[in-house]
Amino acid sequence: MPLLPALPPGLLDALHGVLGARGIVTDQADLVPHLSDWRGLYRGASPALLRPGSTAELAAAMRLLHEAAVPVVPQGGNTSMVGGAMPDESGRQVILSLSRLNRIRDLDPVDMTMVAEAGVVLKTAQDAAAAAGTLFPLSLGAEGTATIGGVLSTNAGGNTTVRYGNARDLMLGLEIVLPDGGVINGLRRLRKDNTGYALRHLMVGAEGTLGIVTAAVLRLFPRPRAEAIALCAVESEDAALALFRRFRDRDETAVRAFEYMAGQGMDLVLRHVDGATLPLSERADHYVLVDLSSSRPDADLRGLMEGVLEEALEAGEVLDAALAESEAQRAAIWRLREEHPEAQKREGASVKNDVSVPVSKVPELIRRSNAALTALIPGARPVPFGHMGDGNIHMNLEQPEGMDAGAFLARSHDIMDCVNAIVRDLDGSFSAEHGVGRLKPDMLAEWRGGAELDAMRRIKAALDPLGLLNPGKVLPA
Amino acid sequence: MPLLPALPPGLLDALHGVLGARGIVTDQADLVPHLSDWRGLYRGASPALLRPGSTAELAAAMRLLHEAAVPVVPQGGNTSMVGGAMPDESGRQVILSLSRLNRIRDLDPVDMTMVAEAGVVLKTAQDAAAAAGTLFPLSLGAEGTATIGGVLSTNAGGNTTVRYGNARDLMLGLEIVLPDGGVINGLRRLRKDNTGYALRHLMVGAEGTLGIVTAAVLRLFPRPRAEAIALCAVESEDAALALFRRFRDRDETAVRAFEYMAGQGMDLVLRHVDGATLPLSERADHYVLVDLSSSRPDADLRGLMEGVLEEALEAGEVLDAALAESEAQRAAIWRLREEHPEAQKREGASVKNDVSVPVSKVPELIRRSNAALTALIPGARPVPFGHMGDGNIHMNLEQPEGMDAGAFLARSHDIMDCVNAIVRDLDGSFSAEHGVGRLKPDMLAEWRGGAELDAMRRIKAALDPLGLLNPGKVLPA
Repeated sequence: MPLLPALPPGLLDALHGVLGARGIVTDQADLVPHLSDWRGLYRGASPALLRPGSTAELAAAMRLLHEAAVPVVPQGGNTSMVGGAMPDESGRQVILSLSRLNRIRDLDPVDMTMVAEAGVVLKTAQDAAAAAGTLFPLSLGAEGTATIGGVLSTNAGGNTTVRYGNARDLMLGLEIVLPDGGVINGLRRLRKDNTGYALRHLMVGAEGTLGIVTAAVLRLFPRPRAEAIALCAVESEDAALALFRRFRDRDETAVRAFEYMAGQGMDLVLRHVDGATLPLSERADHYVLVDLSSSRPDADLRGLMEGVLEEALEAGEVLDAALAESEAQRAAIWRLREEHPEAQKREGASVKNDVSVPVSKVPELIRRSNAALTALIPGARPVPFGHMGDGNIHMNLEQPEGMDAGAFLARSHDIMDCVNAIVRDLDGSFSAEHGVGRLKPDMLAEWRGGAELDAMRRIKAALDPLGLLNPGKVLPA
Repeated sequence: MPLLPALPPGLLDALHGVLGARGIVTDQADLVPHLSDWRGLYRGASPALLRPGSTAELAAAMRLLHEAAVPVVPQGGNTSMVGGAMPDESGRQVILSLSRLNRIRDLDPVDMTMVAEAGVVLKTAQDAAAAAGTLFPLSLGAEGTATIGGVLSTNAGGNTTVRYGNARDLMLGLEIVLPDGGVINGLRRLRKDNTGYALRHLMVGAEGTLGIVTAAVLRLFPRPRAEAIALCAVESEDAALALFRRFRDRDETAVRAFEYMAGQGMDLVLRHVDGATLPLSERADHYVLVDLSSSRPDADLRGLMEGVLEEALEAGEVLDAALAESEAQRAAIWRLREEHPEAQKREGASVKNDVSVPVSKVPELIRRSNAALTALIPGARPVPFGHMGDGNIHMNLEQPEGMDAGAFLARSHDIMDCVNAIVRDLDGSFSAEHGVGRLKPDMLAEWRGGAELDAMRRIKAALDPLGLLNPGKVLPA
């Protein structure tokens, strides 16, 4: 165990005073799960983990830390893909866990709102909404661990963005603790409220560098009462986009998800995942998963699905399609999509690119990236898949067969640069839904430099003049 | 004409240099239309009106004004309800008109985006979207004059918020000129982009006090291909809410608008507006307008409308209903709603309250306000109407018959205070969609004081340290 700079005894006593024995952990053994991320890519050190049991306790602790100028790293479910919840290795940064702020304070089926504390796990929020006959639609791979505070602080996206928007769009109000311990009670459940600067929107996506989100008013929706899900083999990337347009133009409110998968990735899923089978007559180079839903029981989504697929078959865009006839078949089709990361992992090493482009440019992104990546590393296998309907494709690259994993991973930055150059040319983003965290502040400087970065720095200095909140994240040093 | 402090001759020359002769107006006669708002409630003075012809010209002018520390009031369509685009009476504040930034730079039916400059009139943007077979759904009374820069800077709402959200929700990216002339090119047409602080969302609703919105990427939607519109007499405020819930729960995506109107307001419309007739068998104390739409031609909205209304008739919520059978009937029903302000004006003086509460509390807001207002001013006639579906009711008050208009209007602040006390008790907002402007900074201080106001002030100081942008608006002095 390295020797860490301890917190000043006076501060420790004061923190004990406001947080109680349950609220502060200094034993390094107990801190271990908090000192690396879930993929083991980022590690840090910390003198203490704070676990306040209420917003008032959290605010009191923040005041003490602010007075002592101790830096603080907020941590929710610790599922960041970019090291966003990791302290650095200095051992000076206290970890602030939101885990005990885990109450659902209110759920109102008339207002269609839920007031959830930051530490509520996303799946728990989904379940609470469902139990009240409603839907909280945010859905992503880490939903069993990720928390409301985390998904809001990173403006998480996921599979249903094409229909319901990002986390930002599902938020009406926030309770926020500022770096100096000041509390903003913005838990207003209003659909219209134009009263000054939208601090809540500034906090969403700020990754805990401007303030701590302690609770949120979330939007609920009527639960779906009709569904239709199909897996389609399509002729090309362009055909996939053409099919998306057909569905969107017919009824944009029915398209809950529209996911692209390359044949190469599907091959890996079919090879590595137990029980995975292709419900189509033959392999294809391109697939899409179409997921339609409606709160209207009589929405006739099957008719909509069949009608559009028939047109697309005639147009030569769709080669073959399988409609799910049961809940089991629906789950099996979704599993083919969701097991992509796991299949990639079993096949070998891979590098992930979380990028987005305008929807119209997705085919070009995939084609150009595929070509550039295989030119960069001969034998490497591009595995693009993801949210075609919102322009966010995970442009992942699987190592060449037989290549040493370490040697391949050593090219990670070359691979990211290769994809990013194309993304930039297509007016896209280097971070679609994972955020900036510890991984990409230099990209932020490069892509959003000049007046934009300067304005961000000014805002950071205004709200956190001592630079205590989640240092080293988002903004470059 | 009062003697104004003129701009320094050197600055005038420099502005001429960057803006050209068309870009600067100093003749006070030509300035007149810009020195009072459309209702004549606010007046100001100004030494010059600047009309840059491009973002580059605007930025260059801002740099000059910043160096000379000259305050600037941005002005779009000048349709603010709260004096948001009016200079003060000092004569020191230059008016910055966005009127020549009026190009639609791009419209992409695949991305479903439009890039519009700030000076594009809302109606022009709607028409351009329609010409491309798409819909830009923001819709409000002033749409023939209000501009894209204005509706974004005030996060305008309107009739279709219940379905499409506020202006904020219809924006993907912004081009912004900062007070020092720095330009942020954030015109990204991305559905997912998590790269640093959401400056675009900070600008929306900031009413031109933090930066000048010069262009925006707007979201487009498929155009509706099915509609159903009905006027209903309902039993009470609670019955109106119950009916809204029935429609929302059946298909929340179909409810384009759901408007409440009190019998007293409808009486005024029927009395004062040429050709206005009630398509129901008898007068009622409460009405709602239900407007359903879908991009699906086969959505069977008539079936949905009739099915829900039948249930509500049986439940005693709905007393009578008239479904529009033609485009003319649809327009006639909407006209009954839209002529409320005009009818109020013809009847006499009235005081407007633009408030919102959680949707569940709308009936209580209306009942309590009606009682409190008639107790405050005996004989005065409450005329509540507006967007029940998003909790934004215009709790207007018509003067008592025979009372002197001036004497009634002298009670304006008492009337606003009376309604606001109830709104506050119901966790509502003193400004739902009109913003703060010159009228309500003191309310902002009272309602959003403490840490929230402090954070707003810090952000203002960070982005506009000299306090040059739209001084006296939003934040209290």
